[in-house]
Amino acid sequence: MYKYCFFNDYSEGAYPAILELLTQTNLAQEDGYGEDLFSRQAADLLRQATGSPAAAVHFVSGGTQANLIVLASLLKPFEAVIAATTGHVAVHEAGAVEATGHKIVTVETADGKLTPAQVQEVVDQHTDEHMVRPRVVYISNSTEVGTAYTREELVGLAQCCRANRLYLYLDGARLGSALVSEGADLALTDLASLVDVYYIGGTKNGALLGEAIVINNPALQPDFRYHLKQRGALLAKGRVLGLQFIGLFRDGLYFALARHANAMAAKLSNGLAALGFSFLTRSTTNQIFPILPDPLIAALQRDYGFYIWRRADTGHSVVRLVTSWATREEKVTEFLEDVVRAMQGS
Amino acid sequence: MYKYCFFNDYSEGAYPAILELLTQTNLAQEDGYGEDLFSRQAADLLRQATGSPAAAVHFVSGGTQANLIVLASLLKPFEAVIAATTGHVAVHEAGAVEATGHKIVTVETADGKLTPAQVQEVVDQHTDEHMVRPRVVYISNSTEVGTAYTREELVGLAQCCRANRLYLYLDGARLGSALVSEGADLALTDLASLVDVYYIGGTKNGALLGEAIVINNPALQPDFRYHLKQRGALLAKGRVLGLQFIGLFRDGLYFALARHANAMAAKLSNGLAALGFSFLTRSTTNQIFPILPDPLIAALQRDYGFYIWRRADTGHSVVRLVTSWATREEKVTEFLEDVVRAMQGS
Amino acid sequence: MYKYCFFNDYSEGAYPAILELLTQTNLAQEDGYGEDLFSRQAADLLRQATGSPAAAVHFVSGGTQANLIVLASLLKPFEAVIAATTGHVAVHEAGAVEATGHKIVTVETADGKLTPAQVQEVVDQHTDEHMVRPRVVYISNSTEVGTAYTREELVGLAQCCRANRLYLYLDGARLGSALVSEGADLALTDLASLVDVYYIGGTKNGALLGEAIVINNPALQPDFRYHLKQRGALLAKGRVLGLQFIGLFRDGLYFALARHANAMAAKLSNGLAALGFSFLTRSTTNQIFPILPDPLIAALQRDYGFYIWRRADTGHSVVRLVTSWATREEKVTEFLEDVVRAMQGS
Amino acid sequence: MYKYCFFNDYSEGAYPAILELLTQTNLAQEDGYGEDLFSRQAADLLRQATGSPAAAVHFVSGGTQANLIVLASLLKPFEAVIAATTGHVAVHEAGAVEATGHKIVTVETADGKLTPAQVQEVVDQHTDEHMVRPRVVYISNSTEVGTAYTREELVGLAQCCRANRLYLYLDGARLGSALVSEGADLALTDLASLVDVYYIGGTKNGALLGEAIVINNPALQPDFRYHLKQRGALLAKGRVLGLQFIGLFRDGLYFALARHANAMAAKLSNGLAALGFSFLTRSTTNQIFPILPDPLIAALQRDYGFYIWRRADTGHSVVRLVTSWATREEKVTEFLEDVVRAMQGS
Repeated sequence: MYKYCFFNDYSEGAYPAILELLTQTNLAQEDGYGEDLFSRQAADLLRQATGSPAAAVHFVSGGTQANLIVLASLLKPFEAVIAATTGHVAVHEAGAVEATGHKIVTVETADGKLTPAQVQEVVDQHTDEHMVRPRVVYISNSTEVGTAYTREELVGLAQCCRANRLYLYLDGARLGSALVSEGADLALTDLASLVDVYYIGGTKNGALLGEAIVINNPALQPDFRYHLKQRGALLAKGRVLGLQFIGLFRDGLYFALARHANAMAAKLSNGLAALGFSFLTRSTTNQIFPILPDPLIAALQRDYGFYIWRRADTGHSVVRLVTSWATREEKVTEFLEDVVRAMQGS
Repeated sequence: MYKYCFFNDYSEGAYPAILELLTQTNLAQEDGYGEDLFSRQAADLLRQATGSPAAAVHFVSGGTQANLIVLASLLKPFEAVIAATTGHVAVHEAGAVEATGHKIVTVETADGKLTPAQVQEVVDQHTDEHMVRPRVVYISNSTEVGTAYTREELVGLAQCCRANRLYLYLDGARLGSALVSEGADLALTDLASLVDVYYIGGTKNGALLGEAIVINNPALQPDFRYHLKQRGALLAKGRVLGLQFIGLFRDGLYFALARHANAMAAKLSNGLAALGFSFLTRSTTNQIFPILPDPLIAALQRDYGFYIWRRADTGHSVVRLVTSWATREEKVTEFLEDVVRAMQGS
Repeated sequence: MYKYCFFNDYSEGAYPAILELLTQTNLAQEDGYGEDLFSRQAADLLRQATGSPAAAVHFVSGGTQANLIVLASLLKPFEAVIAATTGHVAVHEAGAVEATGHKIVTVETADGKLTPAQVQEVVDQHTDEHMVRPRVVYISNSTEVGTAYTREELVGLAQCCRANRLYLYLDGARLGSALVSEGADLALTDLASLVDVYYIGGTKNGALLGEAIVINNPALQPDFRYHLKQRGALLAKGRVLGLQFIGLFRDGLYFALARHANAMAAKLSNGLAALGFSFLTRSTTNQIFPILPDPLIAALQRDYGFYIWRRADTGHSVVRLVTSWATREEKVTEFLEDVVRAMQGS
Repeated sequence: MYKYCFFNDYSEGAYPAILELLTQTNLAQEDGYGEDLFSRQAADLLRQATGSPAAAVHFVSGGTQANLIVLASLLKPFEAVIAATTGHVAVHEAGAVEATGHKIVTVETADGKLTPAQVQEVVDQHTDEHMVRPRVVYISNSTEVGTAYTREELVGLAQCCRANRLYLYLDGARLGSALVSEGADLALTDLASLVDVYYIGGTKNGALLGEAIVINNPALQPDFRYHLKQRGALLAKGRVLGLQFIGLFRDGLYFALARHANAMAAKLSNGLAALGFSFLTRSTTNQIFPILPDPLIAALQRDYGFYIWRRADTGHSVVRLVTSWATREEKVTEFLEDVVRAMQGS
């Protein structure tokens, strides 16, 4: 038994108020497949919170599902996605996008973030019908390595996409954490004008399950429910998903939970930096990637759950520590004390 | 506002004891993606309840998802599914199976049930590589028109499938209702030896969401999690699905809820039959299809929610009435009284 | 060894003048992948012959390839094809269309031809996102059972398609035979205004290989070469295909060959009718389907190659006899004489 | 008008003796779809020439078609291909493999050839169901940059594949050129024991069209014609393909044509090297990649057709020169003289 697990941000159930919402509404008879009152209310709340009154909002049960459905809906058979090599769709979705028939053209990045120059280079290399045609740029925010886009970076990407007739899609599995991260100057309402489609992740920020797909671009809105149904994403009791987002967005809970997760990660980062450790990336979000000596890692793994990300050099490895809405500060303190103890002991 | 809706069996949330389970376990830290303690316990419970100790059990969030993933996992690119024209996969899943690359060869049936002779005829017609090769027989139990297979019927199909090297797959969205239907002689434990793969529907029998895929055939068990992941079906908080089935199967709740739903449907059937109405099919499950005069339907629709299934003749239509674990007997009584009142008034 | 085979219309190689064209042009250096001079000339010839100066014309190597590429290019993932149950795409292409992700909704017909009423009924049944959305009507002319559309029938279908926002696609594997069939009032130039896309079959009318896809609808023209390349249909030496259609269309050879094939089939039909035999369909094209006594069939199969189509009743079967540009009249005469001889002998 | 084109090895038609074969056999009635006498004879010839008496041999019309059909036939939905970033399937087939649902995992190489260490690294990185599972290694020989595998290199790859349960597939679009390249120690008969499946390219070595797929691994042989049919690759007049390979293999023409093409490329290479130019790769096959000054390129492009491959540095570019069975030595001599003339003139 671990003292605590930093494996990920979906180890616990839901923020308790969300479970209560399920209980309170349980016996109301509602339409199925996302046409219930709660899903409609949640969509309204999101249109308001995102500053996009004309957006289409749909709820699905997970991030891979959101990604594969959105991307497949945007592409003709010969069209492709541009993504970072670290992008979730490129590496950690078991080929879900390719299974819908589409290539992902990948780009090496320093920090998990794509730049306009990188996108332009891919576009310029794809010149005729012997190659796929890039049509969507996929980014994640926060990225898979804990970094977050600045407003300026995203504006640059959006301009590059428009200039090249590319759609810009943002995977927001951890969007909350990115938006409230230290130094972040990007607001949720900025996305309305910057990206064509994105999803707001619920699962990793306090929901029992659920991601909200927001389609800003009106040309991409029609018939989206067909795509959802065909890929098995329309839940008969769609109310369950709608209620998650009512809980998260009716009074700002979404941001409060993300702020807590980030604060816990920052406390971990600061504590480890003070002990002299360095990091794989400068994360300002709820995933940090310290580089630790292997014996220390082995010692800590007796009491704490976390993943080894990859080898750094002989004797050191990068580990991933993830915090969440459910991480109590005393657990972070205890972890840092145990690090000190293990360093002294070794 | 309706007095009551007979639209379907997923209008309400979950049976309350299941919500309580979610609450009780909410803060336990568990592994993600279906590898949590609850999912493992639920799988054990199901292996026991189904009498198949070596079965592989996986949980997904909905029936279309279950169907498309199972069927795609069983088929090579040129292989096809045999199904009734009324089969859910054939008509009501927006082409989900075809979207994975496979044809469904359909057969007209009288009552939604396939017979060995019909299956054999399809096999005999597909003789060479200019045609697809049938490889899986898809049946649903109960069927989409409320009928249920007898043990003998299912044994016949299983033998026909084995003789023709076909897999037999059973869509159990409403399996509970079928198993406890009046006159049913098929036990849940019979399925272990009769079908290769099936799923036990939770969503339509008291769960918040969730279907349990049971893979009996050991040759079909390896790598199934790859299929789940690739189609976006591995929930990060897989615990949510496991807990539904712990709730449903730890003390027989699954059967009790189905019995209640059937009893309510029987009460409706008997009441309508006593008034002289006939039915599209002889349903013994929780979906009934009475044939009613159009003015009566119009009158009833002012107070009750239900679907018109199709036109029967000039002046009459088939309607579908669905009951569930949540249907209170007083609502059924009230409905029947209102039928009498409407008949007198018209 | 057979005296002659009526198996099909692709038993021989190419009409000799086409082979000569290959030889004459053999050493000219040309661009690859359909951008050669000959393919461009052939496309110009076809735009002229079809009366569609703005059509896009592409050449592929076979009919299944043409069908799967055109249909996949017309459809979004959730969209479907309407076809007769006898349609080539529905039954004799090994699930090629489904392998691109799309359902074919089939309709029983009397004679292999679709009617506007049948199309309308399918459209009316597909009402929401739980079902596929029909988007293309697939017809073949001549049909798989030897019948041909009249101009009026095709106009009716075209109007129905336009009224329902459906594309109309015509599989012209045997288009030549249909256009010159007895009583036919449909001209090749009529297709420009009636169908969105069609292909003119070369393989079954004198070419070594090759089908010419004609895209009338300008909205469907862009990027078609991407679809061709992705499905493996762009031949490096595309010149081979272009030269076939130069041979067939520079001086009306296409129609002359089809007329000969039809005349040979008519001679067979008339001869058999005179002997008292009836037919499965009233074919006016180069495929006929007489119903013959089984002993006669057995006797004839010793000297002639042809397929038994299906059983008619106890003692009789439908057979298919196909003629082509290469069928010599003396072989037809000999066959009819042998029928008489076999009838007397039995 | 160019003096000569070095664009590629498919600019002309067929080696004349092959056209003569078509003419000689033109009126023989044969079965369709590859079951004709000529295709059977060609398959026998190839089983003999490749030293694989139990191999299955099938003919298709092009390389992209061969690649997509073979690869899709080897893979379950979640399985993937490993290829070099320069691999034809990875970059120049418009996403044909992804369109069948499968990811290609790419590896940077120095010379277009994969090594066992690179393959092993990819395998080691793919550890669980959140990622695809690599299942086939795709190589081309000769490669897209003109290099050829030694026997030892191929043995090493084959051992690595066996150790990791990977299939080894060889794209032999230019296999002839590789086998007879200078210093090559790999025999066509070696492939029987080294690769599971490969194809012998006809189109780029004297055929009008056609590639011969050779399936060594018996487990991969059943049902392959279903895959061919479903992807539109079964030509009605399959005889056309069979005859190409009778022409190429009945008396060693295949190797003679490749030797000529290589000799012409070597003459070009030696001539350019003598003038002091360097090359992108050490090609021993019929594609060479000299690095030339941009003004020289511009001058040569007035009289000769060839592609600029990519920029080398400011002022220089890599060009690709391709020779074939049809390249006359005098054209090579003339080209080299024109290079000298252009250098003097500039």
